[in-house]
Amino acid sequence: MKGSMTLADAFKNSKHPVVGHGKRSVQVLLESLAGTDADTASDMYGKGDIIERFQAKMADYLGKPEAVFFPSGTMAQQIALRIHCDETGKRQVAYHPLSHLELHEEDGLKELHRIETVLLADRNRLIRFDDVRLLSEDVACLLLELPQREIGGQLPPYAELEKISAYCRSRGIRLHLDGARLFEILPHYEKSAADICALFDSVYVSFYKGLGGIAGAILAGEPALTERSKIWKRRHGGDLISLYPYVISSDYYFDKRIGKMAQYYDEAKALAEMYNECADSICTVPAVPVSNMFHVEADVPKEALEPILASVAEETGVGLSAWVKTLDSGGSGYEVNIGDRYAAVPEARLREAFALLREKLLSFSAEEHAKA
Amino acid sequence: MKGSMTLADAFKNSKHPVVGHGKRSVQVLLESLAGTDADTASDMYGKGDIIERFQAKMADYLGKPEAVFFPSGTMAQQIALRIHCDETGKRQVAYHPLSHLELHEEDGLKELHRIETVLLADRNRLIRFDDVRLLSEDVACLLLELPQREIGGQLPPYAELEKISAYCRSRGIRLHLDGARLFEILPHYEKSAADICALFDSVYVSFYKGLGGIAGAILAGEPALTERSKIWKRRHGGDLISLYPYVISSDYYFDKRIGKMAQYYDEAKALAEMYNECADSICTVPAVPVSNMFHVEADVPKEALEPILASVAEETGVGLSAWVKTLDSGGSGYEVNIGDRYAAVPEARLREAFALLREKLLSFSAEEHAKA
Repeated sequence: MKGSMTLADAFKNSKHPVVGHGKRSVQVLLESLAGTDADTASDMYGKGDIIERFQAKMADYLGKPEAVFFPSGTMAQQIALRIHCDETGKRQVAYHPLSHLELHEEDGLKELHRIETVLLADRNRLIRFDDVRLLSEDVACLLLELPQREIGGQLPPYAELEKISAYCRSRGIRLHLDGARLFEILPHYEKSAADICALFDSVYVSFYKGLGGIAGAILAGEPALTERSKIWKRRHGGDLISLYPYVISSDYYFDKRIGKMAQYYDEAKALAEMYNECADSICTVPAVPVSNMFHVEADVPKEALEPILASVAEETGVGLSAWVKTLDSGGSGYEVNIGDRYAAVPEARLREAFALLREKLLSFSAEEHAKA
Repeated sequence: MKGSMTLADAFKNSKHPVVGHGKRSVQVLLESLAGTDADTASDMYGKGDIIERFQAKMADYLGKPEAVFFPSGTMAQQIALRIHCDETGKRQVAYHPLSHLELHEEDGLKELHRIETVLLADRNRLIRFDDVRLLSEDVACLLLELPQREIGGQLPPYAELEKISAYCRSRGIRLHLDGARLFEILPHYEKSAADICALFDSVYVSFYKGLGGIAGAILAGEPALTERSKIWKRRHGGDLISLYPYVISSDYYFDKRIGKMAQYYDEAKALAEMYNECADSICTVPAVPVSNMFHVEADVPKEALEPILASVAEETGVGLSAWVKTLDSGGSGYEVNIGDRYAAVPEARLREAFALLREKLLSFSAEEHAKA
């Protein structure tokens, strides 16, 4: 029965889902294990070939002396910030108001580490050099998230990043990179990961976003920091006897997808263009993506956009999003992340989907106009 | 070349290793996944069938209303103690001086949660009811580890446990069970897990000790505690997007080995008897095991015991231990954990190994005597 499904179901049943790599199922783990020798010894509390080799590989890739594998970025980043505070003898860190630490971690940094936070910039824009210049000398560390996910994945110009880095160094402010999506921005900056990481004192990267792994994170930096981070990893309860299910899968999906970031980036720009050309009531943030991601914002309430997207999925087979949320503006929106699926969507179907989306958005606007 | 190998290598190469379930290799994960449908959906930040079903199964088994899966016991226990402190408005917890929290967690409880600790009893013996009666009213929670691992895996009489529990309840002191090896003591107590857990306000159990899984822990208790524990799990960085590699393997090895604990217990008693009958210079703690584990203590320095055990392994094929450590007494010792391997050791080989061990220990004693 057309039009009766929830958006989540319509997306799930769509023949051509546009976003992501695929279902998060046990198959993701099985695929990563297929080429692994069953006799491979487990890591043991952070030691052993399997974890040490991957840490060395990532340290090399990120251009840092050492790297430590963590179960999660939440754990890795709190610990990095704690060490920067301890080493500088200060208790404040600065980050964006929509930082992961501020929104999604139940205030772990404050509750567990008693670190005070300074929220830099407005919610709706990036941290700029002029914001950084206002930091007081009580700030141990500035965390920059590249790209800034909660505003659609935005990036400062590279020159501004260099300016921020130089300023922080000159003032003794440590600079930490929330690189949850670092791999995804390399094609836009046309820089290596090591180039970018050289601007930062410590770096966290994730293996289940653009790379599509299961879970896991790396924290990289100077040995003084990484060695201390292992002690804090133990304290947090993250120094598991065996982390190899995450290490193996992180390594596998890194190798599988690190070379595809430019493709995802190009596809994100192409898809964003389709949204921006579709109708006045819908657009993307940023207007031109700088990574594999962007946000879609519609001047239409969630209750209207959901059935529109659901029927687009049902009628054309193209799943544009599995969910919609209400925005502060009263409109609605969702996040788009391009992965392996996009390339499999036939272009004709995609054009059809956007034609139908346009038609439904215009008809919604006309109805609203008639009511008013 | 006989006698030239390190003990670790001699054990690794021994045809009949006596302790443990087997090598900690990727095969442990592969075995647990073999029966899993590849389409099974991942858990998502603590939600989803795969994790919720296992939590419900363990809550039921432990006789508690709710259970929450954690990556580690270190994380689960700190969080349980923190919640007991917060709920009672007190800042102290009491435990044994050789508790895991005191020895192996880099003081996470103190560093992250600012909880003060009261060390009950001497290092060499169990916490007794008379110790518990001395607790001040500032203590929020008493943690009991059953069995007390670092003293060979000892247990109080069940009646004393009931007395401690009743006393704590009457005084408003919360009681937490460090049940890292809870499954392993059920045959000795002849109680169900739920019987024992009923004496405690909160319970942690582990899936990679007697059960031989990869990693993972359950914290069980009242909903007020388990719901709060999820918030702290997020704060600690343990609320991973996907914990299923540990959930699936924990569930698999629980089913595979929960019924074998009585066998391991009987085997541990039989093996301990062989040690205790072997020579005056070697014995077990406890003299009669109460679980699948015990400690071996020898009145022989580590430097002498290592080559003795290595040559027993090389000459008879029987690997008694992979390591030896120096004891406070100046002698040496090691921990024995019985798992699947024991049943595969031919009894004749084992008798041969103990005859050779006896011979070598007596000859060492004779030489020492001659020197003196």
